[in-house]
Amino acid sequence: MTLQAPASVASDRTFSDRLAAARDGLAARDADALLLGIGSDLRYLTGYAAHPTERLTLLVLPSHGTPALIAPRLEALAAAASPAGVAGDVEVVAWDETDDPATVVAQRLRTALGEAPAGRLLVDRGLWGMHVLALQRELPGSAFGLATEVTRELRIVKGADEIERLRAAAHAADRVIDQVTHGPLVGRTEADVSREIGERLVAEGHQVAAFAIVASGPNSASPHHAASRRVIQPGEPIVLDIGGTLDGYCSDITRTVWVTGGIAANAPSDEFLTVYELVRAANAAATAAVRPDAACEGLDELARRIIRDGGYGDAFIHRLGHGIGLDGHEDPYLVADSAEALGPGMAFSIEPGIYLDGRFGVRIEDIVVCGAGGPDVLNEAPRELLVVDG
Amino acid sequence: MTLQAPASVASDRTFSDRLAAARDGLAARDADALLLGIGSDLRYLTGYAAHPTERLTLLVLPSHGTPALIAPRLEALAAAASPAGVAGDVEVVAWDETDDPATVVAQRLRTALGEAPAGRLLVDRGLWGMHVLALQRELPGSAFGLATEVTRELRIVKGADEIERLRAAAHAADRVIDQVTHGPLVGRTEADVSREIGERLVAEGHQVAAFAIVASGPNSASPHHAASRRVIQPGEPIVLDIGGTLDGYCSDITRTVWVTGGIAANAPSDEFLTVYELVRAANAAATAAVRPDAACEGLDELARRIIRDGGYGDAFIHRLGHGIGLDGHEDPYLVADSAEALGPGMAFSIEPGIYLDGRFGVRIEDIVVCGAGGPDVLNEAPRELLVVDG
Repeated sequence: MTLQAPASVASDRTFSDRLAAARDGLAARDADALLLGIGSDLRYLTGYAAHPTERLTLLVLPSHGTPALIAPRLEALAAAASPAGVAGDVEVVAWDETDDPATVVAQRLRTALGEAPAGRLLVDRGLWGMHVLALQRELPGSAFGLATEVTRELRIVKGADEIERLRAAAHAADRVIDQVTHGPLVGRTEADVSREIGERLVAEGHQVAAFAIVASGPNSASPHHAASRRVIQPGEPIVLDIGGTLDGYCSDITRTVWVTGGIAANAPSDEFLTVYELVRAANAAATAAVRPDAACEGLDELARRIIRDGGYGDAFIHRLGHGIGLDGHEDPYLVADSAEALGPGMAFSIEPGIYLDGRFGVRIEDIVVCGAGGPDVLNEAPRELLVVDG
Repeated sequence: MTLQAPASVASDRTFSDRLAAARDGLAARDADALLLGIGSDLRYLTGYAAHPTERLTLLVLPSHGTPALIAPRLEALAAAASPAGVAGDVEVVAWDETDDPATVVAQRLRTALGEAPAGRLLVDRGLWGMHVLALQRELPGSAFGLATEVTRELRIVKGADEIERLRAAAHAADRVIDQVTHGPLVGRTEADVSREIGERLVAEGHQVAAFAIVASGPNSASPHHAASRRVIQPGEPIVLDIGGTLDGYCSDITRTVWVTGGIAANAPSDEFLTVYELVRAANAAATAAVRPDAACEGLDELARRIIRDGGYGDAFIHRLGHGIGLDGHEDPYLVADSAEALGPGMAFSIEPGIYLDGRFGVRIEDIVVCGAGGPDVLNEAPRELLVVDG
């Protein structure tokens, strides 16, 4: 799907304020320019949801001088129609099909910064390698770093409007989980259930259905299993990890259900119930511990200790969670080696899991916002094990 | 949607043959390793349709030694289940959440190539900037180039099985164009029509509905206009540019229709009809000229001359076309400065257009394969102007 909503609700000042804050960030980091390609940093600073393409689109935000939005000729009208384009906060500079866009960028930087723009240039983390290498070739005197040095500080704390958009996306995903987990599931392929989830995410308001992991039986032991032609059997678990984009902001929820096919003998095994309860307890404990100044690594350890004490430490093979906003994965990361302290307005997933290769896996994931007094859990779908007949 | 089909139908030898050919390409280009992240080069060489993520997944194919598929721990099972993983053509190396994956890559290269792997390393064009910079930091003695130096030669000529997949995707997109252009269209928002197209692309067999441009009235003058809340009016054109992925291969078709609302006075203007006919003639002439050894720039010029002679040269603001296969845009590019010669099995779009800012635009796009004796046009939807009531 391509329909993209504006990146953010925005007062008239939203993007010019953000651009000014980014420029302040450049000065604070002693860097000379931000170079942002198609992606969330660009959307955050300009509201421009650019058509994905291999052609270079680049916001050139120098430490002084007018910011330029370098765009392919055929995207120039769309770039000019972006909020920052309409407001005159950026100058749209079009390049033609036989131009080398990296030379256009280099020329623009020389005009803004002087003939020898050594210094530091910060490119966004997702800029394609072909563009990074071309810019390095055209700007051989410059050191290249990552734009996240500047943009992470701006984006990591969500405004009230951003939190409400994340909440709306979370609630839409909750409704899809509710609809799908009531079945029928047994006898269908994972791919068919995945397709249904994608349709339901859109029907519930998402513009983009980004992913719909349906991992049944032994496939549930692979955290990012791609939905396959495997037919769901009675007497096994299914990990459902789904999400998309609603008004620019991402949803991401995981629930693990058990299907019996209506036969009592197909009830969950004791070991499955033990594993499920460990994951549920880890999710609950980490969520309850969310507060300002809590360290990311501390939350990870809190969840990990519960699973380790239960005897499954080696089977929790990924970090506890990741930030979420315009990107599905962004700062802060809740991971073992991050001393970063949470602050009010940070939004992230809490998603412990246990994965037993060849047998089964369990994961329970919510999106949580750090409030001034504790957690604000955006997802409301039940976390108790749902055992369904069909 | 996440459902991803295997990248290619494949005999048991497909991927080991392709990996061997890539290694031959390294030797021919005097390069020391291919470093391929998540994307089409990786799918082409290994069949691995990796889950999109910011975590580094990297095929490290050195000029000698066993190829390694470096993957995050939580993706390791999926990587091992890829065709090349199952066949033992690559060794899966998992990294943990607190590892720096770039150091894992550097270590692997040193093991394969010796302690001082200066030389040239070729990264894929879409590898994220954060990974490119991290690899440059860990491998300061190496020169970095683009993997397309090697992979373009492998991928630019499609095999018979790949052409049939492109044809199946094209025919599915043709059916969606047929369904949607019969209306109703007037009175609906562009966004609503775009949503319908996305659903129909999936219903007709696509796994991914990648884009559905619906550009009505003056919006049609912006080639990549994002579908908006604008309501389609009687008496205006609509550019529909739609595509997705079916069994790993891309579709991409554009048709421009005119809607009258059933009122005779709303028929197309003479100027619109003139512009439409110029675009249609340019599409037809360029398509008819497809044959082995035809130069890409020659086809572009052939179409451009027709439009220029008609008085609209400045309004054809993009190249004639782009290659298509596992990627929606890939080599060869039909552009004014490319002397590249077509060869049998190359697949590409032919999509001339005229864009009159503030007024209207027209584009007609087909996917064409260069056959031994001339063009094999994959799309079969009619190219005559369709004037519809509703």
